[in-house]
Amino acid sequence: MAKFNLFSRVEVSGSGFQYPVIIGKHGLDDFSLLQSLVPGFQVLIVTNTTVAPIYLESVLQAFAAKQCDVVFLQDGEAYKTQQSLFTIYDALIKKRHHRQSCLVALGGGVVGDITGFAASTYQRGVPYIQIPTTLLAQIDASVGGKTAINHPLGKNMIGSFYQPQAVLIDIETLNTLPEREFRAGLAEMIKYALLVGGTFLQQLQKALQQGITAQSTELPELIAACCRIKAAIVTEDEKETGSRALLNLGHTFAHALEAITQYQEWLHGEAVAIGLYCAVLMSHDLGHVDEKAVHLVEDLLQQAGLAYKIPRSIDLTQLIELMAVDKKIKGNNLRFVLFRGLGDCYLEDQVRQTCLQKTLLNALEGE
Amino acid sequence: MAKFNLFSRVEVSGSGFQYPVIIGKHGLDDFSLLQSLVPGFQVLIVTNTTVAPIYLESVLQAFAAKQCDVVFLQDGEAYKTQQSLFTIYDALIKKRHHRQSCLVALGGGVVGDITGFAASTYQRGVPYIQIPTTLLAQIDASVGGKTAINHPLGKNMIGSFYQPQAVLIDIETLNTLPEREFRAGLAEMIKYALLVGGTFLQQLQKALQQGITAQSTELPELIAACCRIKAAIVTEDEKETGSRALLNLGHTFAHALEAITQYQEWLHGEAVAIGLYCAVLMSHDLGHVDEKAVHLVEDLLQQAGLAYKIPRSIDLTQLIELMAVDKKIKGNNLRFVLFRGLGDCYLEDQVRQTCLQKTLLNALEGE
Repeated sequence: MAKFNLFSRVEVSGSGFQYPVIIGKHGLDDFSLLQSLVPGFQVLIVTNTTVAPIYLESVLQAFAAKQCDVVFLQDGEAYKTQQSLFTIYDALIKKRHHRQSCLVALGGGVVGDITGFAASTYQRGVPYIQIPTTLLAQIDASVGGKTAINHPLGKNMIGSFYQPQAVLIDIETLNTLPEREFRAGLAEMIKYALLVGGTFLQQLQKALQQGITAQSTELPELIAACCRIKAAIVTEDEKETGSRALLNLGHTFAHALEAITQYQEWLHGEAVAIGLYCAVLMSHDLGHVDEKAVHLVEDLLQQAGLAYKIPRSIDLTQLIELMAVDKKIKGNNLRFVLFRGLGDCYLEDQVRQTCLQKTLLNALEGE
Repeated sequence: MAKFNLFSRVEVSGSGFQYPVIIGKHGLDDFSLLQSLVPGFQVLIVTNTTVAPIYLESVLQAFAAKQCDVVFLQDGEAYKTQQSLFTIYDALIKKRHHRQSCLVALGGGVVGDITGFAASTYQRGVPYIQIPTTLLAQIDASVGGKTAINHPLGKNMIGSFYQPQAVLIDIETLNTLPEREFRAGLAEMIKYALLVGGTFLQQLQKALQQGITAQSTELPELIAACCRIKAAIVTEDEKETGSRALLNLGHTFAHALEAITQYQEWLHGEAVAIGLYCAVLMSHDLGHVDEKAVHLVEDLLQQAGLAYKIPRSIDLTQLIELMAVDKKIKGNNLRFVLFRGLGDCYLEDQVRQTCLQKTLLNALEGE
């Protein structure tokens, strides 16, 4: 049993909540650390059939002295559904979990979002902790308390704001993460870099140029930096009435792309990569940024091994239809996060239909 | 179009919320009042097939200038389900309701609870208002932001704390309320009286002795008094970490009785009537109150026209099983609200199995 090796600890706080994001190595092997994060004597672990064979055993051992039940979901965005949610409720009720029970999300963003939503609504709210095992969940989904399930017509349409008790990021889990998942996580990392610019953008550019992997020595600091950015924004605007909306950079496009393919085609991060490209194209079309900015975004995505063009198989008219169902709407207008410059984003809800159409056509892959 | 006749206005406030409970006559006929309570330009009214034919037309007229959609639920506790909830989400998404949309709950406690839950989780939270049309919803369910749906194994197991923007109580709606529903509402009124004792208990005793009806001149003040009691408790303890739990007087028994009969046998208030009787019997058995207190509770329930004995058809062993699934559990123990005296209740989580069994046997109806 390895001892936990702390790299960084980021505090997330706001009105009525405060919790740590604990970043390091071997956290999943340190039973006393795990025990210290979970109150009460009942635990329900939610995980998926990919993650469980690798990491469940250790977590179960840590909680051997408690009543510990497990729900296994199928892996993938296509299972972030009403059915999966009610599988969790059923287990909680059948195993008689009380208001003091703690839920543990062991997996990626899908497991984290759905577990958080179940925790926020079971008996009107029970505690939960996040143990994200994908890069995307570690730097984005697990921090900040946005919980959700998808609806067939729209991503994350049903959810809540409900903060975890703690987030435990064991960077070692990235060693078992499939390459494709790792690259999808890089898309959200690029999103942060484009949002804040400056040193972090430079750091990430350098790491991508050198060919970043799960073993890169720069990775822990990049992950911690993303968590710090997210924590600062959540502290300022938990419920997304203002600045938190900037974190949706690329997401108006991404969510529609995911919905149009029934969440089967892309990992969330892969859709975000295309969305980031669309956002910079639209900003360019509106005269906010120059060609150089477009190329910089293209380079970052390319170096991360991410495809960023919209496939020709996508029906653009239907895609625009689906955007209108999105949450990111103000009044009756679509809302986009656009660039004034790199590291300088803003909310735009006055985009003309022709501009949107042009952006999507420009983002289409070549024949 | 009648003008609103205000009887009383009760403010409910707490950490992060403040809203009025507006009590009076002809509120549903006053378009400008209704319009003033609903922000935005999109409205989704949730109602049921019993209430809609009587009151929907007026509300629709009030919102004629907005996009106004309607979801019709079947009437009754048996429809406070996952299926009904997702009918609401489907309508919201298909009709493209945005984050600024406002939900309107037009009906009794079931409609109010489920609408509140949908509002708390659609796009992570949209505003809603309560227009309760039953006595029970007016004095209890509509005030205080407890939202929920039932699970086949337990009442209100899935829900949230989420406060409405306003509660509009039109006492005139009680004129069309079936007698049985009115009496069920009186059970919750008796609960408040037993909780606070004193003048309110005397007032209610007198009103019951005189044979209270929907037309009684005392009724508006009794309703307002209940709302004031509820508002004070919610202000003190929104999330039921302390004093709010006292409002569950009789409810550990009531919820199990409802679940064991699949929510088909009793109206919620009717189950509460039996629960109140069980609570005073248990308090008597523990030596807290004398025979006189038991008789007083019996008299109140009888005068309200409420049956308060457990039917012989109920399997008491299974009933106790179901109590163990209830939310009102502390540690591994069942939790009851008991009397130290009338108007003086407390939480008890050290009730022995034998005491519970004896209480239920004593509450059984005669052969």
